[in-house]
Amino acid sequence: MVKQIVLSQHDMPESWYNIVADLPSAMPPQLHPETLEPMTREDMLPLLPAGIVDQEFATERWIEIPDRVRELYQIWRPSPLYRATSLEKALGTPAKIFFKYEGVSPAGSHKPNTAIPQAYYAAQEGVKRLTSETGAGQWGSALAFACAQFGLEATVYMVRASYNQKPYRKMLMATWGATVHSSPTELTEAGRKILAEDPNSNGSIGIAISEAVQDAMSREDTKFALGSISNNVLLHQTVIGLEAKKQLEIAGEYPDVVIGCVGGGSGYAGLAYPFLYDQLSGKRTGTKFYAVEPEACPSLSRGQYAYDYPDTASLGPVLPMYTLGHTFMPAPIHAGGLRHHGSSPTMGVLAQHGLITPRTYSQNQIFDAAVQFARTEGFVIAPESAHSIRGVVDEALAAKEAGEARTILMHVSGHGHFDMAAYDAYLAGRLEDFEPTESEISTALESLPDTKSLV
Amino acid sequence: MVKQIVLSQHDMPESWYNIVADLPSAMPPQLHPETLEPMTREDMLPLLPAGIVDQEFATERWIEIPDRVRELYQIWRPSPLYRATSLEKALGTPAKIFFKYEGVSPAGSHKPNTAIPQAYYAAQEGVKRLTSETGAGQWGSALAFACAQFGLEATVYMVRASYNQKPYRKMLMATWGATVHSSPTELTEAGRKILAEDPNSNGSIGIAISEAVQDAMSREDTKFALGSISNNVLLHQTVIGLEAKKQLEIAGEYPDVVIGCVGGGSGYAGLAYPFLYDQLSGKRTGTKFYAVEPEACPSLSRGQYAYDYPDTASLGPVLPMYTLGHTFMPAPIHAGGLRHHGSSPTMGVLAQHGLITPRTYSQNQIFDAAVQFARTEGFVIAPESAHSIRGVVDEALAAKEAGEARTILMHVSGHGHFDMAAYDAYLAGRLEDFEPTESEISTALESLPDTKSLV
Repeated sequence: MVKQIVLSQHDMPESWYNIVADLPSAMPPQLHPETLEPMTREDMLPLLPAGIVDQEFATERWIEIPDRVRELYQIWRPSPLYRATSLEKALGTPAKIFFKYEGVSPAGSHKPNTAIPQAYYAAQEGVKRLTSETGAGQWGSALAFACAQFGLEATVYMVRASYNQKPYRKMLMATWGATVHSSPTELTEAGRKILAEDPNSNGSIGIAISEAVQDAMSREDTKFALGSISNNVLLHQTVIGLEAKKQLEIAGEYPDVVIGCVGGGSGYAGLAYPFLYDQLSGKRTGTKFYAVEPEACPSLSRGQYAYDYPDTASLGPVLPMYTLGHTFMPAPIHAGGLRHHGSSPTMGVLAQHGLITPRTYSQNQIFDAAVQFARTEGFVIAPESAHSIRGVVDEALAAKEAGEARTILMHVSGHGHFDMAAYDAYLAGRLEDFEPTESEISTALESLPDTKSLV
Repeated sequence: MVKQIVLSQHDMPESWYNIVADLPSAMPPQLHPETLEPMTREDMLPLLPAGIVDQEFATERWIEIPDRVRELYQIWRPSPLYRATSLEKALGTPAKIFFKYEGVSPAGSHKPNTAIPQAYYAAQEGVKRLTSETGAGQWGSALAFACAQFGLEATVYMVRASYNQKPYRKMLMATWGATVHSSPTELTEAGRKILAEDPNSNGSIGIAISEAVQDAMSREDTKFALGSISNNVLLHQTVIGLEAKKQLEIAGEYPDVVIGCVGGGSGYAGLAYPFLYDQLSGKRTGTKFYAVEPEACPSLSRGQYAYDYPDTASLGPVLPMYTLGHTFMPAPIHAGGLRHHGSSPTMGVLAQHGLITPRTYSQNQIFDAAVQFARTEGFVIAPESAHSIRGVVDEALAAKEAGEARTILMHVSGHGHFDMAAYDAYLAGRLEDFEPTESEISTALESLPDTKSLV
């Protein structure tokens, strides 16, 4: 029986897929953080490499992957697609479960898919240093790895909750030569402001973004790199879904359901958008798309579709997205990569049209599924990815109930080798669940900027 | 440029290669630990599954891999072969460096290559529980993973030095459902004896083997599994080299040098033996084979070729091997998987004939190479594998000096995701080097059993 569907390096995609070309309604423009007028290319150039800015505004459907990027993608791509035969058997489901596994990259997640091109364009333009934020450390690791490939310096602002929970992640980044700070720091105005209000702040991705942006703006030789949310990031991630399509073709399958975890949404978009293209272009119909979120940070499920800042200090471009409000402070769950108050703009448009449906789970629910996955399929995966598994387990059990042989495709974004303390806490029954109250969310939503309504 | 050479799952080997069929001189028999008479099949059956005992005595060249084992191998096999183009460039060497990367397995090393067949044969024979030892935790993780695949219980005795250095490894094993003890324990006679002499003992692989053997012998439903040294283990590992041969063929290359780290020797044997077959059968000549050891535990380099026990309490079969003496207590280096006083019997014969040449390096030397590897090739690898890298760096620099475009093939046995504290210590300049004195080795060699000489 075939468990792994191997794709040759010669079958790696030559272009990224840009869903902006196919959205069912026009994407509202990003707005300048101060003027609240539509952002221009020139507004972004001080912060991001020009090659990245171009892609942020790009509207063509296919964007060629530079040769050097494709060469470096070979360090871990094409990533494997697996049939989860042992999990299927354990669940007694007639469903066929396939998972695309991004944990094979040096940084251990899908994040290098965008870190490599971002570092590539920066290096091409003479940039010497990149700054960024990181939650659980997946993105920071990816950027540290990518910067080492191009001889760039990397400075990473790591959310304090994760910095303390995951000391090995910062050592990993240091091994690649990166400088890692526990955010909020005293190094930036944004950090100092938060610390003045709350010296024990756990930090958040929003705060860390503010710090990395201020750092980048303060030096000529430095640009900023973002790990999720932006159009260009989601674009780069589509190599995942493009490969998965070819692999499923080899297996003679097409998904009825595509499931993945969503924080900013880049990993799920990477897998799902090439399949959404089939729906949007009318080539296929009826595929369902489920985006799984943590109960503790349910932007698609309980947020408002509105313009909001991507960061706590209101420095980034104002984005049209599902948001809990940029002052929302998520509980310190282990899935640090899903602790962002908003999801990406393209995903917002798709959710508005009912093309993507959100689901939420608690920490204990997702670790329950992750342990079952480890004991069946073998891989010990990241808490973020455990959200996907939990969604898939429920979908496979629903298929069993309905007696339907559904084909389920899931995104497993990374391994959990730096998350063993979380598994330990789960196995020992020490894992807390968190769910924001209605009033916590409505209070945070009062921080929305004063722009026109999106709905 | 091609960096990764992908092999299809359809090209996975159908048989393991048994070098016993081709050794340049007969392998001396293993001896019974009490009688010192040659071991029989019947002597081993109480301890090991019959399928494993058969393979331990097998003399045929090719042994078929069961279908179910090949199916489960697909979880991570074929493993990737890479051309280390960035490392080559950094070294400015004309050498071509290829590395076979086993870090993609769920347990993170080459060890599941033998854990899966060992658990398979045990389950087939109705065994309910396997016990074993582990050093750095690589082997224990592999066994825990494999036992979960077959619904077997796993109990792992983990060398205390590593148990304390690597808490995440024991959580990993627990996630797969295994029970992990810090060895020496109070649970076995062997453990109690050591603790009575030295309550602060760091443990050793030799002690942990003794404990796991006594545990297995005390229960009807339990057998023992060994992670290295034995013929059957080295046999299973040859999938590595058999795949690498096909991958190099695709690249149009054949190695001038094959380099790997050696503790018991199973990982290096796995890569090297299929190439040694070409030498032994006269198909090829002139390939060099370098086995890299830690200075702290130099069995091939400074040990004696003699009969010795594989474990501290003298419970295992007496083996013909290069040994430092079974009472030798290696310093607590981070490469816990290389802390064994002896290397495998087949490797002993090959080293005697000059077919394998040992080299040694200190901890700081190998981490220096590992950091260079991480910053060029991207992967953060295990301290064990860092020995291979250091050997390759020196070989590549020698090729540069000689102006020769040598083709170097290396074994990278696993990732270093659970070894970040070691990287941290290295980067902070806190890493100690250890080298046993002549008198420490000669004292330990006094513990050799009273058998006939091998040389």
